Amino acid sequence: MNAQVQPLHAAADYKVADISLADWGRKEIEIAEHEMPGLMAIRAKYAPQQPLKGVRVTGSLHMTIQTAVLIETLKDLGADVRWASCNIFSTQDHAAAAIAASGTSVFAWKGETLEDYWDCTLAALTFTLPDGTLGGPQLVVDDGGDVTLLIHKGYELEQGDDSWVNSASGSHEEQVIKNLLKRVAKERPGYWTRVVKDWKGVSEETTTGVHRLYQLAEAGKLLVPAINVNDSVTKSKFDNLYGCRESLADGLKRAMDVMLAGKVAVVCGYGDVGKGSAHSLRAYGCRVIVTEIDPICALQAAMEGFEVKTVEDTLGTADIYVTTTGNKDIIRLEHMQAMKDQAIVCNIGHFDNEIQVDRLNASGAVKTNIKPQVDKYTFADGHSIFLLAEGRLVNLGCATGHPSFVMSNSFSNQTLAQIDLWANKDAYAAKVYILPKKLDEEVARLHLEKIGVKLTTLTPEQAAYLGVPVEGPFKPEHYRY
Amino acid sequence: MNAQVQPLHAAADYKVADISLADWGRKEIEIAEHEMPGLMAIRAKYAPQQPLKGVRVTGSLHMTIQTAVLIETLKDLGADVRWASCNIFSTQDHAAAAIAASGTSVFAWKGETLEDYWDCTLAALTFTLPDGTLGGPQLVVDDGGDVTLLIHKGYELEQGDDSWVNSASGSHEEQVIKNLLKRVAKERPGYWTRVVKDWKGVSEETTTGVHRLYQLAEAGKLLVPAINVNDSVTKSKFDNLYGCRESLADGLKRAMDVMLAGKVAVVCGYGDVGKGSAHSLRAYGCRVIVTEIDPICALQAAMEGFEVKTVEDTLGTADIYVTTTGNKDIIRLEHMQAMKDQAIVCNIGHFDNEIQVDRLNASGAVKTNIKPQVDKYTFADGHSIFLLAEGRLVNLGCATGHPSFVMSNSFSNQTLAQIDLWANKDAYAAKVYILPKKLDEEVARLHLEKIGVKLTTLTPEQAAYLGVPVEGPFKPEHYRY
Amino acid sequence: MNAQVQPLHAAADYKVADISLADWGRKEIEIAEHEMPGLMAIRAKYAPQQPLKGVRVTGSLHMTIQTAVLIETLKDLGADVRWASCNIFSTQDHAAAAIAASGTSVFAWKGETLEDYWDCTLAALTFTLPDGTLGGPQLVVDDGGDVTLLIHKGYELEQGDDSWVNSASGSHEEQVIKNLLKRVAKERPGYWTRVVKDWKGVSEETTTGVHRLYQLAEAGKLLVPAINVNDSVTKSKFDNLYGCRESLADGLKRAMDVMLAGKVAVVCGYGDVGKGSAHSLRAYGCRVIVTEIDPICALQAAMEGFEVKTVEDTLGTADIYVTTTGNKDIIRLEHMQAMKDQAIVCNIGHFDNEIQVDRLNASGAVKTNIKPQVDKYTFADGHSIFLLAEGRLVNLGCATGHPSFVMSNSFSNQTLAQIDLWANKDAYAAKVYILPKKLDEEVARLHLEKIGVKLTTLTPEQAAYLGVPVEGPFKPEHYRY
Amino acid sequence: MNAQVQPLHAAADYKVADISLADWGRKEIEIAEHEMPGLMAIRAKYAPQQPLKGVRVTGSLHMTIQTAVLIETLKDLGADVRWASCNIFSTQDHAAAAIAASGTSVFAWKGETLEDYWDCTLAALTFTLPDGTLGGPQLVVDDGGDVTLLIHKGYELEQGDDSWVNSASGSHEEQVIKNLLKRVAKERPGYWTRVVKDWKGVSEETTTGVHRLYQLAEAGKLLVPAINVNDSVTKSKFDNLYGCRESLADGLKRAMDVMLAGKVAVVCGYGDVGKGSAHSLRAYGCRVIVTEIDPICALQAAMEGFEVKTVEDTLGTADIYVTTTGNKDIIRLEHMQAMKDQAIVCNIGHFDNEIQVDRLNASGAVKTNIKPQVDKYTFADGHSIFLLAEGRLVNLGCATGHPSFVMSNSFSNQTLAQIDLWANKDAYAAKVYILPKKLDEEVARLHLEKIGVKLTTLTPEQAAYLGVPVEGPFKPEHYRY
Repeated sequence: MNAQVQPLHAAADYKVADISLADWGRKEIEIAEHEMPGLMAIRAKYAPQQPLKGVRVTGSLHMTIQTAVLIETLKDLGADVRWASCNIFSTQDHAAAAIAASGTSVFAWKGETLEDYWDCTLAALTFTLPDGTLGGPQLVVDDGGDVTLLIHKGYELEQGDDSWVNSASGSHEEQVIKNLLKRVAKERPGYWTRVVKDWKGVSEETTTGVHRLYQLAEAGKLLVPAINVNDSVTKSKFDNLYGCRESLADGLKRAMDVMLAGKVAVVCGYGDVGKGSAHSLRAYGCRVIVTEIDPICALQAAMEGFEVKTVEDTLGTADIYVTTTGNKDIIRLEHMQAMKDQAIVCNIGHFDNEIQVDRLNASGAVKTNIKPQVDKYTFADGHSIFLLAEGRLVNLGCATGHPSFVMSNSFSNQTLAQIDLWANKDAYAAKVYILPKKLDEEVARLHLEKIGVKLTTLTPEQAAYLGVPVEGPFKPEHYRY
Repeated sequence: MNAQVQPLHAAADYKVADISLADWGRKEIEIAEHEMPGLMAIRAKYAPQQPLKGVRVTGSLHMTIQTAVLIETLKDLGADVRWASCNIFSTQDHAAAAIAASGTSVFAWKGETLEDYWDCTLAALTFTLPDGTLGGPQLVVDDGGDVTLLIHKGYELEQGDDSWVNSASGSHEEQVIKNLLKRVAKERPGYWTRVVKDWKGVSEETTTGVHRLYQLAEAGKLLVPAINVNDSVTKSKFDNLYGCRESLADGLKRAMDVMLAGKVAVVCGYGDVGKGSAHSLRAYGCRVIVTEIDPICALQAAMEGFEVKTVEDTLGTADIYVTTTGNKDIIRLEHMQAMKDQAIVCNIGHFDNEIQVDRLNASGAVKTNIKPQVDKYTFADGHSIFLLAEGRLVNLGCATGHPSFVMSNSFSNQTLAQIDLWANKDAYAAKVYILPKKLDEEVARLHLEKIGVKLTTLTPEQAAYLGVPVEGPFKPEHYRY
Repeated sequence: MNAQVQPLHAAADYKVADISLADWGRKEIEIAEHEMPGLMAIRAKYAPQQPLKGVRVTGSLHMTIQTAVLIETLKDLGADVRWASCNIFSTQDHAAAAIAASGTSVFAWKGETLEDYWDCTLAALTFTLPDGTLGGPQLVVDDGGDVTLLIHKGYELEQGDDSWVNSASGSHEEQVIKNLLKRVAKERPGYWTRVVKDWKGVSEETTTGVHRLYQLAEAGKLLVPAINVNDSVTKSKFDNLYGCRESLADGLKRAMDVMLAGKVAVVCGYGDVGKGSAHSLRAYGCRVIVTEIDPICALQAAMEGFEVKTVEDTLGTADIYVTTTGNKDIIRLEHMQAMKDQAIVCNIGHFDNEIQVDRLNASGAVKTNIKPQVDKYTFADGHSIFLLAEGRLVNLGCATGHPSFVMSNSFSNQTLAQIDLWANKDAYAAKVYILPKKLDEEVARLHLEKIGVKLTTLTPEQAAYLGVPVEGPFKPEHYRY
Repeated sequence: MNAQVQPLHAAADYKVADISLADWGRKEIEIAEHEMPGLMAIRAKYAPQQPLKGVRVTGSLHMTIQTAVLIETLKDLGADVRWASCNIFSTQDHAAAAIAASGTSVFAWKGETLEDYWDCTLAALTFTLPDGTLGGPQLVVDDGGDVTLLIHKGYELEQGDDSWVNSASGSHEEQVIKNLLKRVAKERPGYWTRVVKDWKGVSEETTTGVHRLYQLAEAGKLLVPAINVNDSVTKSKFDNLYGCRESLADGLKRAMDVMLAGKVAVVCGYGDVGKGSAHSLRAYGCRVIVTEIDPICALQAAMEGFEVKTVEDTLGTADIYVTTTGNKDIIRLEHMQAMKDQAIVCNIGHFDNEIQVDRLNASGAVKTNIKPQVDKYTFADGHSIFLLAEGRLVNLGCATGHPSFVMSNSFSNQTLAQIDLWANKDAYAAKVYILPKKLDEEVARLHLEKIGVKLTTLTPEQAAYLGVPVEGPFKPEHYRY
């Protein structure tokens, strides 16, 4: 790792692993543009109008080739963009280099420490205002809610509530955040209050981050309007499902080169991510066992022919464990201690706390690094397990995340959400919104031609019979797809 | 067909094809009870409380073995039940016989004429009140909304608006309904007004009927509270999807004994019914082409590897056509005139107007009946097509509909909806309601043990982390499953 | 059952359930002809040459609509045909009626007793010769080898070896055969010797019958040349695999209307029939467990994601059992006694002895007939199982067998085998032959156009590079497809 | 590439990319040993007997982690091993390093030139004999037949037939081989004759190499006994099918990170490799089109629901092309010139001549290297295609080949073949043999426990009924699995 610290707030400030990878990154960005028709169509339609002209946008989202196309789309619409990754392992260094080389401030490399990570987040949201003072973003693109968390917690502290910052931390990462906030409090007094003053909204990418937003809103603590991008149909039913269907196996293969056929795989959780994961593994010839807490999702799994059991019931027989729940403590130390020799453990949910990595590291098991993102832990009784990407997103840590085409759907929603937040900055309340169905359908429509889909058009008589406009939207809000 | 007309309103009034089939029907009802754990659990839980004690319930829903278990569940909860089928071909005669034999007034046989059908509907909603006058139901279980339609149209007429009854009819069936209403107007003056006075609510089974209800509600014409059972997750994502995945092929096989592998099948519509249909046919080795109007559903189909084209693009190459849309005029006469020789055309959406059967019958094509529910039409140019179940639901017309287990989910929702409507008869407005998620999850839970599913239980810490109760409900309302 | 005994050897001798069904049967035969392009192409090519002119052919093969097309193809080629079914439940009565009505001697109805069955077999092989004496066939189309068995056993007896005929019988059916042979010995002295004198060959349809032939050949007892049709690629890899993939579920559905999704199904044997069965059930959402004796097939099952266990390991948890092995005593009485309540037991292998039906019937379990081919057995402890088609082929007993298109492949092989046997009657030894690969490829080729397949043609350079003729055959003999 | 040329025939002679990778390679070899139960069981059983004690073995087979386990198995059995890769891109450099570091002479690195490649092959077969002279192997493990080709062609030249060596070459590689032979003729007169004298046999891994062997045998030119390992069931129906099912997508993903769902993929050839490829791509949501020359395989593809067309019919609409045929000139320059913009072209058949790479390179299309093994070619009309691994095996060039578990099956066959060839060196003729079915079943059996398969055992009565031994072999030779 040769990430060089660049002076913060310099003219061309960035921090990436190796700027010389920019040329390779650019070639792959060009390939990706062909696979991201939604974003390219949005550029073509909106760039002339510059709907985000001069708007300061901070992004905290995996710094991949696909994200590079999103960043350049936001810039094409007029935005002033700064970016960090939202996961210590998810950056593709050639993507970050290409973005840095094109003059965008990006702070991200594969294999950050947690301290690095939160410093990068802070750097990405620190804009030098025209008057030379330090300010924050007007809009945020968030993935998992880390920027939102940092601003809210910083603001809370400046409002005089230091209870959280001084509380005992449940994890190492929590302490890193608290330390950062204390440092900022010292170095930039009143900073968060100024940031909040200018902040107009956030669009959030994932189930996990959205969940945090609804919790904030319910508690009456949400500071800005938020758009729940995750629950656009063209996001959650595509990226989460079809993205993971492709990228989980990709991560497993690049990490372990393991034969999937004939193995017993346990998929914890049967939401969209779990559905994509379970179906992918079965198609490879795994015998897949699902764990679930929700009787409806459990029944879905059973109707699809999956066995539904608890993690405990599978110990000693299963070869592969994948967590997809958005919950914590799914794979516990006691589970790993009782697993079959050479079991593979990984997570494709947003946070690494789905697996008890901290407890594992403290357990006395001997850790042997096989290659980056692949560690073998050997227990006292002689059996070993493999932990991938230190429990973080296996598809981004061990492979390159979701492929471009599906991300074009998600990021088209992100871009439309950013436009919408800015256009309605005076109209929206500090609540969580979802994009209207018409835009959701539009995102889908932008992707059809690329893959040769030919839609049928309603006749006026048919539209009248259904009671919908000929051009849509076609479904009631409660429709589930 | 030896359906004998029984005197209406006699002590044991019913009209079925052959009462001697009752014994066979009873044996199959007993088998079905083992496959319908949700209904049996509801009986066990609620029968002691008699929540529908003495309530007059009219059902208009395919008179099958599974429906027999529903009927007997409603009776166990105290209801006074009268029943008709909601499709001229969907009755299983041994089921109807068993229900009649047990003393319930049922008016249904396989192969009714349209005149029979609407007479049966009227018979099912005609109760003799304690004072000897003719009244109507207090609650309605509807499937497709025919009872609801009849009451609303009758009431409209009695309110003095005869515009519809005297308008030109778009189909033969429409005229049959108008004729019936005129006859009732003569024979039973003021009848519909008395019916409406006692009517407290309707629970509706299908996408199509629900759609009608929302249209009525939007127009301010809905007369009673309605529960949209179709959009319970445990209904639409189970019955529509997994039910059709099993019963479409069943209908095709019993009708035509055709090899599905190697055939080109066109599935019109990629909603839940279309998804189940398309996946079933592909699993058999069909090459499936999907048609869609909605870009989101079209993109889903493409992501699953289906070709998406228009019906026109498939003419001359496709072997099988299945309509699943809830819309009308999907397969037009011109389509059928241009199809490949021996193409099979069928419908698994609610109404037969998805296929232009009337125009086909009037087209001059020579109709040859092969066996019940299978007709061959030969066009002037010599090519033929096969039309199944005269365009009505192929799974019910040519086979026996969805299997018991999945119907147990749907009918558990129906039963809970009936209980809910009655309990809240004074609280609910004339709007369309959906069952609360907690009940939805409960319906799923009642079906898990039967199939050996073992749920995981949240720890209190995990529940707190997610912000949900340990025992659920687990998901936000907008969650799509 | 109103099967009327017709006088044997009368001008139009036949014995069917109901001759009035002939018209319906004829309509379905015409539909089937469109689905059987191989047979129709063979008629077109060979009928002018009359390669079977005047040859006496006895067929013992399920008397279905598809077989009717085979019979009429053989007749078109000049043969003098007599036919019986090879299973007491597999006849489609309308097919038999249509064949009888067209003047072919057929002896078959659905639901024969075992005594009926063997009488029919005898009737089908009894030709009245021009001199008025009773003779036998010159060629045999066999399925399971019952005609071959009868002739060999009859001949053995006439050769003076009565050890088998007088031995203790392992099953009721075995005794029926012995009784028949004794009766023939009395009524037609020297008959079998005369039959054998004229007999020139047999083509055999199934794995089971072929196995018998190889055993006879190895023992030096085979009396005529035999063609193993089963092991044509276009038979065993199509009919056994793709046929069962369609007809197993068809049988289960028509018999039980059971929901397959969510059920645990045990498929005993993972040969071609087992593969088709297991994949079909999985596509329906069953969780499928496979049992196997052969480590290679077991490893294949595991690579496809199936759990491989023993029958014993599944007792109490599995809902459906399907035997596909060609072996005996797969499902034993002790198994059925320990199964889950309401488990369904059926067989899709050739003989019913895969399930211990005799022991079940003698076990004291109470047998309740639900409908034809569906029996419920209730054990002393109160739990019940359902046995389908009395343990005989469930797809033929409870549904209509394989669909036409795949049977066209099998029967094209049969027809080419009959032509080949007669053409080489003087050249072939009493061994088991397989059709040459060129003919096998030809059978496939005859079916491609119907389903729109467009083949690529080798360039001469490519053919030379591969060392094969441009027009094939393309693969070495050991190639497995 | 920093491959350092080591002095040939030095004490520890090898040539690898980077010997410092040995430690990483060793860790992965240890992981692979757990996934290769067949090889480990063979070590345990045979190492004590040293069946290959002192035997000089040359291997020409992809120098991967899995092959490392094979090499060390052969050494454990006593062999003196030298190794080269059989493909310029297929070496895993850390595997080669680990093998070199352990003292085995290996000549292989990822990214050899063709000149390097054939020099390595020569180095691998050049043993220094005890008397100090240069000799050759006693046994050969071949994959594609390059060692066999080189020896046969060298021997032919020394026998006085120089027609081939002096003929015009159809490809650059052919000329490289001829040049090498001429050089050897100068440097080592009489060398090939001495090699042939000691050579006792070859076991061949692939369809392509086996095809060459049968051609040699038919022409009467085969010099030694050969064992066709490819056609062991546990090789061709596992490695070719299940291996490619996993490794094709792996190669595509690592090369292109492309979304497979929604794409149109053309799989040329529907043999075992094509079957695995087509099913894998479909499971990802590709719409797969198959091309075939063989009507039987084409009909199989159609029965599985694949569209079967020619390459020409797909130009302009397909996104991905995969060749799997074993034939040449499948994807021609004219095809690539007419493909859709950004189409991806790759090969998973043995040789790169399935795609006309030479013609493409000479066509004037502009070649841009994106990253190793990924080249973009832009044609004059502006459209581009991506060629992976320069047309060589995409799974080995762009990923790491088949996973360990399936290779354990293949390599167990290889090892048993080597033992068998040596044991029968005096008995076998210069023909092509297949391993007996008993060994084939044994290979499968060795892999069952690892994946938790529990076999059923025949009772003696069942075995007698089937006419097979209780412990197998279970199937006739012609059985196709």
